[in-house]
Amino acid sequence: MKIDIKQTAELLKSMDDILILAHENPDGDAVGSACALCLGLISMGKNAKISIERQSQKLKYLMNDVPAGNFEHKYVVACDTADCKILGVSGTDVKKDSKIDLCIDHHYSNVLYAENTYLDETAAGACEAVYDLLNIMNVPITKEMAECLYVGIATDTGCFRYSNTTAKTLRTAAALIDAGADNKTINRVQFETKSKEFASLERMAIGAMQMHFSDKCAILPVTFDMFMKSKADDTDTSALASIPREIEGVLVGITIKERTPGEFRISVRTNPPADASVIAATLGGGGHKMAAGCSYSGKYKQLLKIILTNVSDYLTQEGLI
Amino acid sequence: MKIDIKQTAELLKSMDDILILAHENPDGDAVGSACALCLGLISMGKNAKISIERQSQKLKYLMNDVPAGNFEHKYVVACDTADCKILGVSGTDVKKDSKIDLCIDHHYSNVLYAENTYLDETAAGACEAVYDLLNIMNVPITKEMAECLYVGIATDTGCFRYSNTTAKTLRTAAALIDAGADNKTINRVQFETKSKEFASLERMAIGAMQMHFSDKCAILPVTFDMFMKSKADDTDTSALASIPREIEGVLVGITIKERTPGEFRISVRTNPPADASVIAATLGGGGHKMAAGCSYSGKYKQLLKIILTNVSDYLTQEGLI
Repeated sequence: MKIDIKQTAELLKSMDDILILAHENPDGDAVGSACALCLGLISMGKNAKISIERQSQKLKYLMNDVPAGNFEHKYVVACDTADCKILGVSGTDVKKDSKIDLCIDHHYSNVLYAENTYLDETAAGACEAVYDLLNIMNVPITKEMAECLYVGIATDTGCFRYSNTTAKTLRTAAALIDAGADNKTINRVQFETKSKEFASLERMAIGAMQMHFSDKCAILPVTFDMFMKSKADDTDTSALASIPREIEGVLVGITIKERTPGEFRISVRTNPPADASVIAATLGGGGHKMAAGCSYSGKYKQLLKIILTNVSDYLTQEGLI
Repeated sequence: MKIDIKQTAELLKSMDDILILAHENPDGDAVGSACALCLGLISMGKNAKISIERQSQKLKYLMNDVPAGNFEHKYVVACDTADCKILGVSGTDVKKDSKIDLCIDHHYSNVLYAENTYLDETAAGACEAVYDLLNIMNVPITKEMAECLYVGIATDTGCFRYSNTTAKTLRTAAALIDAGADNKTINRVQFETKSKEFASLERMAIGAMQMHFSDKCAILPVTFDMFMKSKADDTDTSALASIPREIEGVLVGITIKERTPGEFRISVRTNPPADASVIAATLGGGGHKMAAGCSYSGKYKQLLKIILTNVSDYLTQEGLI
């Protein structure tokens, strides 16, 4: 059932002994929203703890201020998780199909799996929704909460660059800086620091980028071989997906990532008027108008042939080439 | 003479027939602040016009809403210009050493060349200062002014990523979005679009990046040969300067740009505790703690040798290697 912000605040006030989860492969918004909510509930005098899956080096430190919490949980709250199938439940006695008492999210694709869902689709990140909730519950925002929430909002908006950034998003970030979030350091760590391994992977991939159809389609291959040579892991590679679309005139930018030999993850990014979700659907995937994805098992050459045929068909059909 | 915001507002109110200038090689903040101020003064019933040097393709459109202004100017106002030596005066009867009635700026290095200077060193861009000025003069911010000011603030902060971004900067940007600035489109054009030529130049430069001193120093060479091969011009290349510093563990990132054979522009970017201004000073340049620059005429090999010696000396002296 969908509930509004006031009902959510009342529900949280009525709970105690709360376990907070986030989605698997947690990003900044997942970690930030779960940690900030936990700190907020503890400051209200409640027992609360988090269980979050392994995350990248850049996010681990956010959990330093969150106490382990030695109690049996009675309630489960999921943050930033659109579907129980992608809940990060390892190391807990919660199963993916367990009862989740409350979900706090911003994904329009939320399947409403929880008993109660507070869904703010206008929020740039779950952290924006958690900030509003803490405010309405009169929880003073500490420096620690502000850091978590700023990281979530900044990472989910590409540091306020993506189209989900609203005037309210910027005002929320301003309030978090006032509350003590060190935006200068956070921005440097999250957006201006690449591991040597990632920089090497990126260099190889950009060197192998191909242009097709009068430069209206750019393909960025990130092969298993490149992963091996660069020794990069897969934690920061989502940033690669935006590279091919950034080239002027490109309508369709496709990143093909082969983390395991023969297993491909394809990210489709488009510029208007091209529709990424239509192109991803031709390979059994889906997503949004400007960002979509799909998977493929087989040989790279075969996959490339299919992609080029499908993109060519799409661009021709839409009169774009 | 330095004057405060109220005195500046009174001074502007007392002027008419105003020519507005900005610095040479104008960036988003120069173009945005000059155009927004001009539109603001016109909306107050004054004669005002701009004269801005050739700027990059991405910024030209901001001038579309600014009328040509067919009048003889009586007053000259300079925006975003720290020194009269770098005023963009081509196509005007103003000389670099002419009397400038008012300067509106945010550079702490402003040499106070104008008769009156409104200097807000806390502002992320001159556009933040112009926004405050228009507000104090009760000028309603139109969509056109808001677009100019948002572009200036966003480009001078790397879309709110750089350390000059404050809570007030974010609130100003929020107010500009409310006033009609289309942040989604502006961000896509300014930050997510690279020309094919620039992408090619960037690819070559990254491919040639060198690491030194246990990977604490990264050098990015952008040679004349790369400019020729990529056919890139020099308008967007300031973005290259941040690339070497972004690699984890790098304390000193140096970009060497050779736009004309044998003429080098060196950008120094550092991570704490390294000081870019000290390193740039060893080559006769200067700047800030994290961003500085200098120039060199001669041979690339000779320059590289000097830079490596000076960086090695600096890192050793500071106990950083």
